[in-house]
Amino acid sequence: MKIAILGYGNLAKGVESAVRQNDDIELKYVFTRRDPSTVSVKTEGVEVKSVDEIGNYKDRIDVLVLCGGSATDLPEMTPKYAKDFNVIDSFDTHAKIPEHFAKVDEAAKEGGHIALISCGWDPGMFSVMRLFGNALLPDGNDYTFWGRGVSQGHSDAVRRIKGVKNAKQYTIPVPEALAKVRAGEDPVLTTRQKHTRECFVVAEDGADIEKIENEIKTMPNYFDEYDTTVHFISQEEFDRDHGGIPHGGSVIRTGTTGFDKENRHVVEFSLKLDSNPEFTASVLLAYTRAIYRLHKEGQMGCRTVFDIAPAYLIASTGDEIRAHLL
Amino acid sequence: MKIAILGYGNLAKGVESAVRQNDDIELKYVFTRRDPSTVSVKTEGVEVKSVDEIGNYKDRIDVLVLCGGSATDLPEMTPKYAKDFNVIDSFDTHAKIPEHFAKVDEAAKEGGHIALISCGWDPGMFSVMRLFGNALLPDGNDYTFWGRGVSQGHSDAVRRIKGVKNAKQYTIPVPEALAKVRAGEDPVLTTRQKHTRECFVVAEDGADIEKIENEIKTMPNYFDEYDTTVHFISQEEFDRDHGGIPHGGSVIRTGTTGFDKENRHVVEFSLKLDSNPEFTASVLLAYTRAIYRLHKEGQMGCRTVFDIAPAYLIASTGDEIRAHLL
Repeated sequence: MKIAILGYGNLAKGVESAVRQNDDIELKYVFTRRDPSTVSVKTEGVEVKSVDEIGNYKDRIDVLVLCGGSATDLPEMTPKYAKDFNVIDSFDTHAKIPEHFAKVDEAAKEGGHIALISCGWDPGMFSVMRLFGNALLPDGNDYTFWGRGVSQGHSDAVRRIKGVKNAKQYTIPVPEALAKVRAGEDPVLTTRQKHTRECFVVAEDGADIEKIENEIKTMPNYFDEYDTTVHFISQEEFDRDHGGIPHGGSVIRTGTTGFDKENRHVVEFSLKLDSNPEFTASVLLAYTRAIYRLHKEGQMGCRTVFDIAPAYLIASTGDEIRAHLL
Repeated sequence: MKIAILGYGNLAKGVESAVRQNDDIELKYVFTRRDPSTVSVKTEGVEVKSVDEIGNYKDRIDVLVLCGGSATDLPEMTPKYAKDFNVIDSFDTHAKIPEHFAKVDEAAKEGGHIALISCGWDPGMFSVMRLFGNALLPDGNDYTFWGRGVSQGHSDAVRRIKGVKNAKQYTIPVPEALAKVRAGEDPVLTTRQKHTRECFVVAEDGADIEKIENEIKTMPNYFDEYDTTVHFISQEEFDRDHGGIPHGGSVIRTGTTGFDKENRHVVEFSLKLDSNPEFTASVLLAYTRAIYRLHKEGQMGCRTVFDIAPAYLIASTGDEIRAHLL
C-alpha cells in the first residue's frame, strides 16, 4: 500500500514515523504548500512535492493522509481531494462533523473514492468507545475525561495574551469526580467539577504578571468556567519540563442490567499518551489500511470510525486474529 | 427484529432481561431441552417450546441466540442450527475457536444464514480491544487481567472435591503486577505473578478441612500454578456474601511510537461487572442486532466480533451517531 501525506507538521511527522512500524505500508510522497526545497523529511526515499503538482499523482497513491488543521484546512481540503484520492483526515470540530461528512461523502462518491473523516483518539477511538458503551449498556450514563494533557488550543490562547512569551496549558481531570464515576455513583457534574486547567507561562521581561494571570482566568469559553492555576516560570524551566505533548483521558460508561436494573456495570477505556500527535497518527495509519482495503472491495463515499470493522485495521489475516487475539 | 433463545440458564435470563432495554428487539420464544411445561419465563407473552419443534419456527425468528455451554453444547449446537437460522453464541474455548469457526461457517453458508461466534466480553469485547491495541501500537506488549470475579469453572472444580458442599472461587489480579503494567514498565509476568485465587468453601459436616484445602491448592491446571487462599465459611455466610456472579478485568496494550521509539503509550480497557452473565448477554444482544442487519444486507457465513463495524451494534442511525457520539 502506497500512501502520501499532505502537510508536514507534528501529525504528519507522526504518520511518517508510524509507517516504520507497519511493513505493509510505504510512504511515497509528502506534499507541501511550502517550497518543497525548504522541507526535508526524515525518511530516505520519500519525495517532497508541491501540493500544486498533486494532480499528477492520482494513480500513484493508494491513500492520501490529510494532515491539515480542522479550523480552516480540512473543511476545504478533504472534500477537494476526496474527488481524486482515497483520503483520511482528523477533523475534530465535533459540532461541524455532520456538515463535513456530507460534503466529503458527495465528493468521494463523485470521484469513485473512499474517505474517512474525524479519525484519531477523540474523535476516533473515544467515539468508538462511546458507541460501544451505549450499545452494550443502553440504560446508563456517559462520561469523557481528558488529560492530564496539553491542550494546543488553550496553550495558543494563552500565548496570544500581551506580555506572554511562551505558554503551555494542561487539562486535568478532577480526581474526586473521576473516582465517583468509577465507583458507579453516576454523579451529575458541571464543567468546573470535571476538569481543572493548569498553565505554565513564560512572561516577557517587565510584563504585568498579575494582569496576565487575570486575563487567563477570566478568558471566556477557554478558562472562565474552570478553576485555573497559573505558574510563571523561566524559559529554561519551560524548555526542560514542558517540551512534550502528552495527553490522554478516559471514556466511561456506567449502566445497569437485570429485570429490576439491580446490577451495575462500569466500562472504561483510558489512554496515557506520551505524544498526542504520534498516537493520533498511529490511529490514522491503522484506519488508512482499513479504507485501502474497503476501496479494493469496491466501496465508495465517506466513512467514520463507526463504519470500520476492527479486522480491517490490522495487517494480520482473519485466521491469525481468530487464533491469537480472539 | 424477532429473536428466540435456546436454553434458559443464567446467560439466557440475561438476554431476556436485556431485551427489555432494547425497543427494536422482541423476544418471541424460548426453546428448551426440558419439558416446556416445567420452564416458566419472566416475560409475558414469550412462548416456551421444546427444542424438538424448533424446525417449525424457521421463518418466524430473525436470530436464534444460543445459550448453551462451550464444553459440549455449542460445538454441536451452533453448526447444527446455523443451517436453518441466523445464530449467535458465546463459545469461549479459545484454543478451539478456529475449528468451531470453520464448522459454523460451512453450515451457515450452506443454509444461506449468518452466524457470529465467541461473543461476550472475553472472548468478545476484550478480543476487540486486543486487536485495537495491536493495530494502533504494533510495537508493544499485551496484557489481560481478569477479576476480581467469580470463575464458574474453578468454582465447579472445587465443588467436585469430596466433602465440599458449596464453593465459590474468585480470580484476583495481583495489584503490583497491574501497577507495573499501567506504569508502562512492560514486566514479564508468570502466571503466579499475574493473578491470585481465593476460594470460599462450605464444607460438609465432619469433612477433613485440611485435606480439602490441600486438594484445592495442588489441583493441576486449576490451582497449582497460583497462590491460592481458602476460606471455610458457613452456608449462611456463603448465601449472604457470595450469591452474586461479579467479574471484570482489564486489557492493556503498552507500546512505543516515534522515530527512535522515544514515546510510550498505555491503552487500557477495563470492566467492573456486577453480573457476568447479564453483561455477557448485553454484548450478545448488541451483536445480535448487528448480524440481523448484515443478513438483511445479504451477508452469509460465520463472523466474529472482529468483523462487525461498531455502527451495526446500536439502534441509532448513522446521522444520529455522527452527531452525538463521534
